[in-house]
Amino acid sequence: MNRREPLGIAVIGAGRMGADHVRRIDRTIGGARVAAVADVDAARAEAVAADIEGCTAHTDPAAAMAAPGVDAVLVASPGPAHEATLLAAIEHDLPVLCEKPLTPDAASALRVMEAEQALGHRRVQVGFMRRYDAEYVRLKALLDSGQLGRPLMLHNRHRNVASPPFFTSSMLITDSVAHEVDATRWLLGHEITAVTVLRPAASAGAPEGLRDPQFVVLETDGGALSDVEIFVNCGFGYQVQAEAVCERGTARIGDGHALVTNMAGRWGGTITQDWSERFAQAYDDEVRAWVDSTRRGEVTGPGVWDGYAAAAVCEAGVRALENGGRVEVDLVDRPALYR
Amino acid sequence: MNRREPLGIAVIGAGRMGADHVRRIDRTIGGARVAAVADVDAARAEAVAADIEGCTAHTDPAAAMAAPGVDAVLVASPGPAHEATLLAAIEHDLPVLCEKPLTPDAASALRVMEAEQALGHRRVQVGFMRRYDAEYVRLKALLDSGQLGRPLMLHNRHRNVASPPFFTSSMLITDSVAHEVDATRWLLGHEITAVTVLRPAASAGAPEGLRDPQFVVLETDGGALSDVEIFVNCGFGYQVQAEAVCERGTARIGDGHALVTNMAGRWGGTITQDWSERFAQAYDDEVRAWVDSTRRGEVTGPGVWDGYAAAAVCEAGVRALENGGRVEVDLVDRPALYR
Amino acid sequence: MNRREPLGIAVIGAGRMGADHVRRIDRTIGGARVAAVADVDAARAEAVAADIEGCTAHTDPAAAMAAPGVDAVLVASPGPAHEATLLAAIEHDLPVLCEKPLTPDAASALRVMEAEQALGHRRVQVGFMRRYDAEYVRLKALLDSGQLGRPLMLHNRHRNVASPPFFTSSMLITDSVAHEVDATRWLLGHEITAVTVLRPAASAGAPEGLRDPQFVVLETDGGALSDVEIFVNCGFGYQVQAEAVCERGTARIGDGHALVTNMAGRWGGTITQDWSERFAQAYDDEVRAWVDSTRRGEVTGPGVWDGYAAAAVCEAGVRALENGGRVEVDLVDRPALYR
Amino acid sequence: MNRREPLGIAVIGAGRMGADHVRRIDRTIGGARVAAVADVDAARAEAVAADIEGCTAHTDPAAAMAAPGVDAVLVASPGPAHEATLLAAIEHDLPVLCEKPLTPDAASALRVMEAEQALGHRRVQVGFMRRYDAEYVRLKALLDSGQLGRPLMLHNRHRNVASPPFFTSSMLITDSVAHEVDATRWLLGHEITAVTVLRPAASAGAPEGLRDPQFVVLETDGGALSDVEIFVNCGFGYQVQAEAVCERGTARIGDGHALVTNMAGRWGGTITQDWSERFAQAYDDEVRAWVDSTRRGEVTGPGVWDGYAAAAVCEAGVRALENGGRVEVDLVDRPALYR
Repeated sequence: MNRREPLGIAVIGAGRMGADHVRRIDRTIGGARVAAVADVDAARAEAVAADIEGCTAHTDPAAAMAAPGVDAVLVASPGPAHEATLLAAIEHDLPVLCEKPLTPDAASALRVMEAEQALGHRRVQVGFMRRYDAEYVRLKALLDSGQLGRPLMLHNRHRNVASPPFFTSSMLITDSVAHEVDATRWLLGHEITAVTVLRPAASAGAPEGLRDPQFVVLETDGGALSDVEIFVNCGFGYQVQAEAVCERGTARIGDGHALVTNMAGRWGGTITQDWSERFAQAYDDEVRAWVDSTRRGEVTGPGVWDGYAAAAVCEAGVRALENGGRVEVDLVDRPALYR
Repeated sequence: MNRREPLGIAVIGAGRMGADHVRRIDRTIGGARVAAVADVDAARAEAVAADIEGCTAHTDPAAAMAAPGVDAVLVASPGPAHEATLLAAIEHDLPVLCEKPLTPDAASALRVMEAEQALGHRRVQVGFMRRYDAEYVRLKALLDSGQLGRPLMLHNRHRNVASPPFFTSSMLITDSVAHEVDATRWLLGHEITAVTVLRPAASAGAPEGLRDPQFVVLETDGGALSDVEIFVNCGFGYQVQAEAVCERGTARIGDGHALVTNMAGRWGGTITQDWSERFAQAYDDEVRAWVDSTRRGEVTGPGVWDGYAAAAVCEAGVRALENGGRVEVDLVDRPALYR
Repeated sequence: MNRREPLGIAVIGAGRMGADHVRRIDRTIGGARVAAVADVDAARAEAVAADIEGCTAHTDPAAAMAAPGVDAVLVASPGPAHEATLLAAIEHDLPVLCEKPLTPDAASALRVMEAEQALGHRRVQVGFMRRYDAEYVRLKALLDSGQLGRPLMLHNRHRNVASPPFFTSSMLITDSVAHEVDATRWLLGHEITAVTVLRPAASAGAPEGLRDPQFVVLETDGGALSDVEIFVNCGFGYQVQAEAVCERGTARIGDGHALVTNMAGRWGGTITQDWSERFAQAYDDEVRAWVDSTRRGEVTGPGVWDGYAAAAVCEAGVRALENGGRVEVDLVDRPALYR
Repeated sequence: MNRREPLGIAVIGAGRMGADHVRRIDRTIGGARVAAVADVDAARAEAVAADIEGCTAHTDPAAAMAAPGVDAVLVASPGPAHEATLLAAIEHDLPVLCEKPLTPDAASALRVMEAEQALGHRRVQVGFMRRYDAEYVRLKALLDSGQLGRPLMLHNRHRNVASPPFFTSSMLITDSVAHEVDATRWLLGHEITAVTVLRPAASAGAPEGLRDPQFVVLETDGGALSDVEIFVNCGFGYQVQAEAVCERGTARIGDGHALVTNMAGRWGGTITQDWSERFAQAYDDEVRAWVDSTRRGEVTGPGVWDGYAAAAVCEAGVRALENGGRVEVDLVDRPALYR
């Protein structure tokens, strides 16, 4: 491509995340514009499109992708709708940024992978935005530098103030730990080979029946362990932390110390209450990187293989949660396109 | 204005700062484009303009401002050139974002103020970008909330790895402490009434003859003290810190704890080496806010009065440095346009 | 007892730990004096005793306990020698402070427990000195206050610079994790019911054949999980950290931030290299508390039951390490004397 | 001396500080015992002495010093009573640890200095206990190591929750800043040559009429500046912090991060409310070091010269507070005994 005109983007899904991306492309990304918006709720699509010059509103994703000036697609619809949209985009050979999960399970992810392989080149990026967070990027760079030696363990904490009403025990794995699954794969450059889920007593602060917190241990083909505390009703704040323990040192991110006060017998600071605050910049940087690489005709971010691997690990994790033991992860052979 | 088309900006000055702004407007700001670039060095202007679609190159600022599609001006030329450019922009009633200093001294700042008053409305914003830094913004919000009570003291640290070759002892005040002068005025909402400059022994790490570090104490009309350690050859990193001491607590920014390592007998992290890293996001947010408010036809940032007040305080500071005592600051009455 | 004269102590074992206790009693403990020292190496016993007024040297622990002026016993000999000394002390109804482990295995600990039960009152305290560390004490007080709600998880880190030459893979459990076993029981007030040991790749920094690091997960009868990273060749320092995750918040100890420097592009501080530095004050406070309670005729610290429970958990841990799975802990019924 | 028997100490003054020292010598110091206690209030002296075996009670300091078994004197009476007690102790050639201030003013300090010079050897140590605080000791060691280069500035913070009812504006200097006066002299190895006191608006939290906070700048004969924020009604806690700014780096103490919690939207920890908590260990270490060196027949701590210099600087500080300007400090020549 290597184009100079702005990239025209069709945004599929105009819920909180989709509307957020529309605002982002309009406001904080150079070289891109929102050309079309689609949502099953026509009024919602129109409300979002109304603010953007030259942007059309649709209820059908395919219609949005076919709208004038559309060069690429950003998928922010619910997970179960992703497969159809992705297959349509691949059919039109359109570059895609697809919010996580790629698809809700490994089988459907494999179908997308087959379609992209049939196309013969990579077009799809998955929205694992932590890869664009400044702290994770610094941690990755430090690990890759070799200064600390080989990574042996990764300790992760993932805490939310409260879970939404529809949250189930298995969604702690598929919706939340999915981020650490990708972060572990990416930071360490390993595939995950087994999952164990340990279940401490449920917190009195969690809704009746929800197994919250959980403690997940991932094993990798590089011999590393990655443990994840997932606690989605911790009550006090949104916290994402990671500590890599390597042969010659450790590195920790996620403490966030911007403003420190002394008040009423205590020192300290506030804790972010929400992912949209903690990772706002990561989303900006993710979309900016995607727009830039797309204009150059490249795919540089996490792709369909990463979306598939995460889905397969999460499936194993749900079985481990249900059965209480250790479950091995079975991945297909990695196709040449993704090596 | 309240326009939907992108704001066409003439960037005056294509040195490091100007080129940085051109890249910023092209890459990270929505709703704006670089329409013209001017630099006394024609080759430099052309090199910068070449990368931008539809951008013209000039050696004369006035020609750049008169170029097709120019709606606003960003001034990033050397300080002594600011006055002429600002007067020309005011004459054309063009919105301006002018890098600090507004002008090198209070007398020239007053001439700009008179021109803007004659125009009858505010058009000029000064580039005190710390007002857009997330940490300063949080500190300001906390002070304004009244939770800590009235601010009584502000302790500032401003440290650079090394000063550029042309730096003089008085530039520690006019070029560096100028930031804390504005930050003090803005955070506290006070005017500065007197300046004392104390001079510890010069560091062996400073160039021969440079009075570095210095310790500056600002007194305000609200009864507060603001002390500033300025140390431009500290050798170890770029650090900007501030602690507000209020009647019921204190608040501190600038420690920056993103990635903490344990290695070789030490815990800790790296220190930024450069303002362009520490304040990159603040520059983005400053220009974005200026573009947005300009498209709405407003001036919301620091203006000519702030540029003048900073110049007057710095002039007093230079006298205090030279004479070793306390020097009072004499401001003109604040015109109605700036109340 | 409730005595006013100083407590005369026989110190059994004059190696590093024993000599350290002799110096401690002589220098930093009021109300106590070293009355006798025993070591299998006569010269070592005599060298230590020579500095202390009125202190006799022995090779036989029993002789030291029978020496004039001996009111109590501090056992700092190697673990395998503990049982005989403890049984002798119990026979003479002497108060004992016994360095950990109480005895090397659960069976021998049970024999000591039976002897003390036959005596009919508690006389033996075990040297789990973390219960006297100021940070652990504050964490325990916070957990007991109920402010954070019920504890659900405890994340522990235990890192040493390098292991001594004689260290084996199972000693990571029995010698090192033993501390976290007791800390978990004490902090949470739970018994441990199962142990899982996960083995990441061995560090290149560990001696050939040593499984280092290990990751141990303890389950408790209160439904809590306590995970322990044990890494005895981490290379960079001695670090003991714990984070309790409760229903309404978390609390973390072990970061230690006394002196923070900015130097050469890095901020941070030094990491303790040795337990004797990190826990020096805890040892002082432990011995002082033991002397004080002994003079009042009481036993207030961890006792034989705690020593037995730790031994039983560590035995299960060694089996878990060897077999790679989860091993349940089987404790005898808690005798009335220890309720 | 170089004695093996315990040092018998007469404690003069049985108020909070004196009683605290009696308990300390009895409980946490090896090689010393309280032989006599004196207080103008006989009942108070008796109450304190009653708990200590072989300790006599007195109303007259001289009688206490002459009591059987007294080898040394610890002075913890009010400052105005110090001179007479010190002169009596010097007359009897008894080693003394005298709580700060040595005496309330420079003139009386000079009289003590003359008496000690007449005696011909040093016997008096002044209770500047920060020299024994682990953090200050580490800072001093780091500065002395030369790693950071020459110290240029010292930024000090000294905050109390609330001042006692009898506190006056000049006591912020003589009672509180006196600690930073000594710490500055000791850490830098410089004498203080001038004092400036700046007065921000008084806090609404301070009692009517009290100039609180104050900002004191000390200049030294080594060309360093030491600034002190003294704020004795800060409301939120007791904080003592110091940051040394040197030619190649800075070092900061006093942040104290032992237990960090996440709770209710905030991370952080508690702030000590009282000096007795913050400096408990420093007092223990000070008295232990004094007892040890006294038994060896040496004086190793701060002496009469240090007490005199602090008094002279504080006198200048009070004049600076009253007059609002810079006041030079005039010291007598340092006698040979104190070089």
